[in-house]
Amino acid sequence: MAGNENRIWTAALVIIGDEILSGRTQDANLSALAKWLNIQGIRLAEARVVPDVQEQIVEAVNALRARNDYVFTTGGIGPTHDDISVDAVAAAFGVPVVIHPRAREVLEDYYATRGGLNEARLRMARVPEGAELIENRVSGAPGIKIGNVYMMAGVPRIAVQMMDSLEGTLEGGLPLLSQTLGAWIAESEVADLLRETERRFEGCQIGSYPFFREGRVGANFVVRSTDAHVMAECVKALFDGLIAAGSQPVSGGI
Amino acid sequence: MAGNENRIWTAALVIIGDEILSGRTQDANLSALAKWLNIQGIRLAEARVVPDVQEQIVEAVNALRARNDYVFTTGGIGPTHDDISVDAVAAAFGVPVVIHPRAREVLEDYYATRGGLNEARLRMARVPEGAELIENRVSGAPGIKIGNVYMMAGVPRIAVQMMDSLEGTLEGGLPLLSQTLGAWIAESEVADLLRETERRFEGCQIGSYPFFREGRVGANFVVRSTDAHVMAECVKALFDGLIAAGSQPVSGGI
Repeated sequence: MAGNENRIWTAALVIIGDEILSGRTQDANLSALAKWLNIQGIRLAEARVVPDVQEQIVEAVNALRARNDYVFTTGGIGPTHDDISVDAVAAAFGVPVVIHPRAREVLEDYYATRGGLNEARLRMARVPEGAELIENRVSGAPGIKIGNVYMMAGVPRIAVQMMDSLEGTLEGGLPLLSQTLGAWIAESEVADLLRETERRFEGCQIGSYPFFREGRVGANFVVRSTDAHVMAECVKALFDGLIAAGSQPVSGGI
Repeated sequence: MAGNENRIWTAALVIIGDEILSGRTQDANLSALAKWLNIQGIRLAEARVVPDVQEQIVEAVNALRARNDYVFTTGGIGPTHDDISVDAVAAAFGVPVVIHPRAREVLEDYYATRGGLNEARLRMARVPEGAELIENRVSGAPGIKIGNVYMMAGVPRIAVQMMDSLEGTLEGGLPLLSQTLGAWIAESEVADLLRETERRFEGCQIGSYPFFREGRVGANFVVRSTDAHVMAECVKALFDGLIAAGSQPVSGGI
């Protein structure tokens, strides 16, 4: 992508698992992935949460990989009957599931001192044909890369470590920067200021996130841009505007 | 839906907001909604996280309302320029945006002692034509119902209160029940037991959720069913199987 450094690189996330949709488990991977992608210069553009149902995983993966540079999945790559993500992604790509020889070796080593490699554990060496592995330094069973799809574990500490393994391997654009101003003011009092300030500084977005604390209303205003200079100018203008509106903005947010 | 009490009622959730996709804000509404829906006898079947971009909100709402009994949205119904959910949902339904007279009254009352109803605040009385209101006892600005789409605030304590306002108004089926057994055992040692136990009890699903704590591996096994009797039998069989596998299962999970 030489000569196109301003292009926005995007990723999507497919969170796979009944336990998320039942409310039993609070997803923690979306925000961790989003922050990690920001540093890689890649924007998390959309996410879907789907149940452990093959056709729904296939639909989500195929819709999202067609329109994003990267797709990440979390969950469903363990050893039990409800771990069907490998079969689903293989179906999405129209390829068979095979045992990856290197994954088998890794698992044999890992389980050598942990009771040996049984049939269930060998399931974790299954990959869509043509896939590569993503190293897992925590629990042996690797993540999987096929095409632009990166399959990671659902357990957050393993997922985070797989991101770490991928560090520096993904092509991206300019990192998205952000700076936050907080103020004890109702966002509805400064709506015009926000809109007009955003318009004045090209490529900046201003997000407004209200809160209620200690019986008072306030809001954090997040300025985002890929250009540090323009972002600083925009933050300065917003700071001055909030002062003029009678509040005392707090850099970094409240 | 008389005579069809076993039909599964489903809902989908569209989480609207750049702040979720940037990793700045951890969503808390999905799990709260999922748990609340379980009690209503409605299953959260899928969820999407979309940015503050009208066409993406429209696409998600239209895809999901066509194939679910209910769609919930969170976020983007405040007073600022980045709050575009009302416009997007109106576009999804192909109707104009109008001021709802009752919402205007509610906001006039709420802001009477809070600086009055300015133009930004009046934005929160805008609804897709034909919509009804969802009461908001926390901060005045109501949620919105149009067709099978329920638009709620993004701020979790307001969203939860809007669910409370909807209590008893949604038709559902049998509540999905669940019971958890925890064990200090690797899920890969009992994969066959889980698969076979699930097969033996019709309508039961068993989810397996591994964890690593205190240097040891364990897993929680969640049995779900709409039939309390069959679920109890399934849990009993799983309990006995885990004992036979050499572990001591803990009711309620670890």
